[in-house]
Amino acid sequence: MSESVKRAVVLVSGGLDSATTLAVARSQGFECFALSFDYGQRHRFELEAAGRVCAAGEVSRHVVFDLNLRAFGGSALTDDIDVPKDRDEAEMQQSIPITYVPARNTIFLSIAMGWAETLQSTDLFIGVNAIDYSGYPDCRPEFIDSFTQLANLATKVGVEGDGGWKIHTPLLSLTKAEIIRRGIELGVDYGLTVSCYDPDRQGRSCGRCDSCQLRLQGFESAGLSDPLEYV
Amino acid sequence: MSESVKRAVVLVSGGLDSATTLAVARSQGFECFALSFDYGQRHRFELEAAGRVCAAGEVSRHVVFDLNLRAFGGSALTDDIDVPKDRDEAEMQQSIPITYVPARNTIFLSIAMGWAETLQSTDLFIGVNAIDYSGYPDCRPEFIDSFTQLANLATKVGVEGDGGWKIHTPLLSLTKAEIIRRGIELGVDYGLTVSCYDPDRQGRSCGRCDSCQLRLQGFESAGLSDPLEYV
Repeated sequence: MSESVKRAVVLVSGGLDSATTLAVARSQGFECFALSFDYGQRHRFELEAAGRVCAAGEVSRHVVFDLNLRAFGGSALTDDIDVPKDRDEAEMQQSIPITYVPARNTIFLSIAMGWAETLQSTDLFIGVNAIDYSGYPDCRPEFIDSFTQLANLATKVGVEGDGGWKIHTPLLSLTKAEIIRRGIELGVDYGLTVSCYDPDRQGRSCGRCDSCQLRLQGFESAGLSDPLEYV
Repeated sequence: MSESVKRAVVLVSGGLDSATTLAVARSQGFECFALSFDYGQRHRFELEAAGRVCAAGEVSRHVVFDLNLRAFGGSALTDDIDVPKDRDEAEMQQSIPITYVPARNTIFLSIAMGWAETLQSTDLFIGVNAIDYSGYPDCRPEFIDSFTQLANLATKVGVEGDGGWKIHTPLLSLTKAEIIRRGIELGVDYGLTVSCYDPDRQGRSCGRCDSCQLRLQGFESAGLSDPLEYV
């Protein structure tokens, strides 16, 4: 590795947002280390998509970290609770949905921070979005700012002043359509990604959960068609 | 469970500090849910001790959460690096030691927070200590304060205002001798605990690593004898 190349840990779920985030990190010259979590998701298609996205994105290493959040339960994404369907935009924004996983992004960023520190990196990338954010509290800019402060206090690199932490959120203030346009510019193949919370057994997206609806509306607003197959 | 009993998640490593912390949480009337981590420690005696401490402490549930931090490496506690021995007090306080595990307490608290939220609890107990703290950045009061702010932003309970998070650190400003005296008052059996970073094959403590030295000095200052067997 050349001394001038900066390393970053990028959270890659296999969805549209994280695929775009990885492409942005690469376009900024970072050597990328991708981190995915096997956290008891309802389906494995997400991790398969993460693998495809990381291979296409030529990351230096892709770690799939086991995290048995099913030990606790409490969310439709990790527990046996039905995923809500066909909600309109007002319903989506109204309250924190059942698909919220307690403390998910805090846990994900903490583990990413630990890995980054072993790589002498203080750069993390996460594809959170404050516009089409489905009501998750840990996708808001104030959450990211607070995590950055914590990182600077919590770690050896933070305390010894080797450099301040930066949590990169390139999608934070983009609409879904803008994210898709940015990704297309950077050569992202969205056919490799999966967004659906509840695909069928063949891995085809339902088109009705919050995540499918936001994705489909995004492609429509961008004047593009989604390469994925829907039920 | 009676409506008036508050629940708390308590981090229990199996060491002297966490055993005391659990006893303090119980003495304050909390129904205790204990969380330990199997994070690729150098030895299993710690988790065995955690099991003994939780059984004696009559917790409602004890979860041992798998966390493969060896996937990243970078610390003497999780990697194949020698544990430092026979360091004097000045050396211990001077810098962050090699036994520092990147982001450990941030990761542990994040996962504890996720579990607590599923229990409708906003109380966490952690046995960090700012006096005999071995130089770890994530044992300082400013770290705890920052984590509390983060918790209030990151979670559904924090955002919906069901109650503010409280990270209880009952040992924060106690010396090791004071911790031991407090534990003895509360009936803690320190013979169940393990503190050593590098015990022999029979689980006997080395007496020479930072953790053993702090423990032995603590018992000596408290005018008590350590019930553990040393090599």
